[in-house]
Amino acid sequence: MSTRCAVIGAGVIGGGWAARLVLSGHDVAVYDPSPRTESVVREMLANAERAQRKLALGAPPRQGRLSFPGSLAEAVRGAAFIQESALEREDLKRQILRDIAAEAPPDALICSSTSGLLPTRLQADMTRPERFVVGHPFNPVYLLPLVELCAGARTAPETVARAAAFYSSLGMKPLHVRKEIDGFIADRLLEALWREALWLVHDDVATVAEIDDAIRYGAGLRWSFMGTFLIYRLAGGEAGMRHFMAQFGPALKLPWTKLMDVPELTEAFIDKIAEQSDLQAEGVPLRELERRRDDCLVAVMQALKTQNFASGALLAEREKASFAERTSGAAAPTIDPTQPLRAHAGRVQPDWVDYNNHMTDSRYLFIFGEASDALFRAVGADDSYLASGFSYFTVETHIVHLHEIAGLAPYYATTQILDADEKRIHVFHRIHHGETGAVPATPW
Amino acid sequence: MSTRCAVIGAGVIGGGWAARLVLSGHDVAVYDPSPRTESVVREMLANAERAQRKLALGAPPRQGRLSFPGSLAEAVRGAAFIQESALEREDLKRQILRDIAAEAPPDALICSSTSGLLPTRLQADMTRPERFVVGHPFNPVYLLPLVELCAGARTAPETVARAAAFYSSLGMKPLHVRKEIDGFIADRLLEALWREALWLVHDDVATVAEIDDAIRYGAGLRWSFMGTFLIYRLAGGEAGMRHFMAQFGPALKLPWTKLMDVPELTEAFIDKIAEQSDLQAEGVPLRELERRRDDCLVAVMQALKTQNFASGALLAEREKASFAERTSGAAAPTIDPTQPLRAHAGRVQPDWVDYNNHMTDSRYLFIFGEASDALFRAVGADDSYLASGFSYFTVETHIVHLHEIAGLAPYYATTQILDADEKRIHVFHRIHHGETGAVPATPW
Repeated sequence: MSTRCAVIGAGVIGGGWAARLVLSGHDVAVYDPSPRTESVVREMLANAERAQRKLALGAPPRQGRLSFPGSLAEAVRGAAFIQESALEREDLKRQILRDIAAEAPPDALICSSTSGLLPTRLQADMTRPERFVVGHPFNPVYLLPLVELCAGARTAPETVARAAAFYSSLGMKPLHVRKEIDGFIADRLLEALWREALWLVHDDVATVAEIDDAIRYGAGLRWSFMGTFLIYRLAGGEAGMRHFMAQFGPALKLPWTKLMDVPELTEAFIDKIAEQSDLQAEGVPLRELERRRDDCLVAVMQALKTQNFASGALLAEREKASFAERTSGAAAPTIDPTQPLRAHAGRVQPDWVDYNNHMTDSRYLFIFGEASDALFRAVGADDSYLASGFSYFTVETHIVHLHEIAGLAPYYATTQILDADEKRIHVFHRIHHGETGAVPATPW
Repeated sequence: MSTRCAVIGAGVIGGGWAARLVLSGHDVAVYDPSPRTESVVREMLANAERAQRKLALGAPPRQGRLSFPGSLAEAVRGAAFIQESALEREDLKRQILRDIAAEAPPDALICSSTSGLLPTRLQADMTRPERFVVGHPFNPVYLLPLVELCAGARTAPETVARAAAFYSSLGMKPLHVRKEIDGFIADRLLEALWREALWLVHDDVATVAEIDDAIRYGAGLRWSFMGTFLIYRLAGGEAGMRHFMAQFGPALKLPWTKLMDVPELTEAFIDKIAEQSDLQAEGVPLRELERRRDDCLVAVMQALKTQNFASGALLAEREKASFAERTSGAAAPTIDPTQPLRAHAGRVQPDWVDYNNHMTDSRYLFIFGEASDALFRAVGADDSYLASGFSYFTVETHIVHLHEIAGLAPYYATTQILDADEKRIHVFHRIHHGETGAVPATPW
């Protein structure tokens, strides 16, 4: 269902809103006094389309229409949803919101992208202020799910509910900030970190690049899926949050940041944190939470490997190096090309088997790939060969599947060179059961 | 090359060090007075092995040996690398480091995992304090790359270099904290955020679960690959860091966090930040940085989708809903056996690619397996067929690899039935690039 939307103020945030709305099938009228508005929004939309194509399987949904009327009044006329994203100045936002309220339909939902100004003050000059609520997004708005909702004194409860439902329909995660407070929740956390970071640069402790590295190679990886409290619960080990607070509570008195004004760790306060932490964990045992954390970390670092960026680039480098190590250290076996080489051995891993506990067919080829790698290393096609710009790839594969092999079974592969010339090699692998020697598969 | 290592103190951090070292092929002696040391470390190692299997393609490297001598002296005797991970109490750490220094070989490298205590004080009672440096890791140590190095007044420069080289060889990212400061760099940032978070719970603004959501659905996703400074540079748009500081500088005076003691934004300070930010960006244009950011965000959210966790679960839900929307009302496809069936589509997953970002050859067969499954389901060999005791298995496979396909590329498979009788089916699959339709592989 398409909703008529207006976006007032079209910088990085307003442009991001326009893109998310249009890509969700809504018609959007954008107004910003800047002469560059249309080109900024169209660039942002192009970015967003590109990201959406990569993000979602299947055909993208129908796009809404984008228009650029010449005035605020024209943009909000007939709109059911209006998002204000002007500069972060209270006087300016109040004036714009007053104008929006005067021109918009009486039942329009009016939201502000403010990062931290108080909704009670922003709605002060509006007619029908009950339809106003803060909807604070994060850049890039077309990708990040979080949107903080914060009501002012005169906001109607159903306005919060309507905004939450609408933002959810855009694929977002609405977080209701239940107490009106400067900076809401997320920006209070971000600002504390940011102010500390500014001190570090100011005092020549670190450069901006070093500070960024201190986040993205460490805590930042965890924060992409678990927040500080759950992460610290896990750091507390079996004894959980109480143990963590007992161990790191005293550090709150240490000058580990400029923020030295800390709440007192009374028994009651520690109880409150521990109880909320228990609720959050939903009874999932520590070891399982650890596995979830580790699986997410592995998945995130592998994902970044595909981008060859940050910790993903480090991981790619490490895999290259470990390949080189396996090649260089091993005394090169003397190869008798007339005999099969026992090049690779291992164990059928738990995640290689189907529900019958039989190794799934693609893992046969995986093992053959490992055996080929071992052969290449043995004949000197190692890391330095790859580093000098050469490589190899598989042209053709033929597998005959003869027997099943079970999860955790040991195996080894034998490899016979059938034929080779300067550019090509034709090999015959066999997988053998490590104990019985049975041959579950061979290519041909 | 295997190094003899000692790990002194085996809680969550020490156990994590032991696991990372053993999995990197080093022999490790662990000492901790707790009677549960061995079981804690072995559990940690099991977690780490599980994660390593998932993280890296190819056979894991040879593991080092783990031992549990009965005393600190015995553990550090003959060790070339020693990591102290005792409780975060200065008196305790000083005493343990003094004991380590007395018993360790004179040229051993001695590191402390302290989160923020000053190395000059920690090394005060050590003999040969020049071989001591802080090496502060992040939990889980066996997965997160960051390790902060911080020298004390009596640390030799070559000790920092040796530690950096050794940690790098473990796949870690050493960050040299050039100025000795309480909390180093990362924990100063984390502590500022953590102290603010404690206030939010204390003042009933939000629960621990809400605070965690405020991070993991928003800024946390970005922090997994870019730090605050680069992210804010992008938020500044074309005009970059200077524009960002002009726009959000005034907000530093607002009560958006408890940390109200902020450096003054003089012209000189803004210049310094902007210059360091220019250096960090390495001349990469804004639009390209935006695309990198977006590609990483997409990759991370897709990775979390495979874990059905946090923003990944949200994305999966959204895809399900959009699929249901598209197919509600669509008629079930009738199979015309004379035509190829478009049975299966997907996206090349981050862990399917090698370090060149090309899909590894066994995943071609994996995709063909998925396509076969889809065909079987389409002809009625579904779950109830399997439940009644029937099954199917692959007898023979022939693959011709025609082109590379990159990580995260969309694909679909087409499946043509070549021949079938009561017991056997002979099919011809093709993998197509989802956008170009190019055919990276086909069996024959």
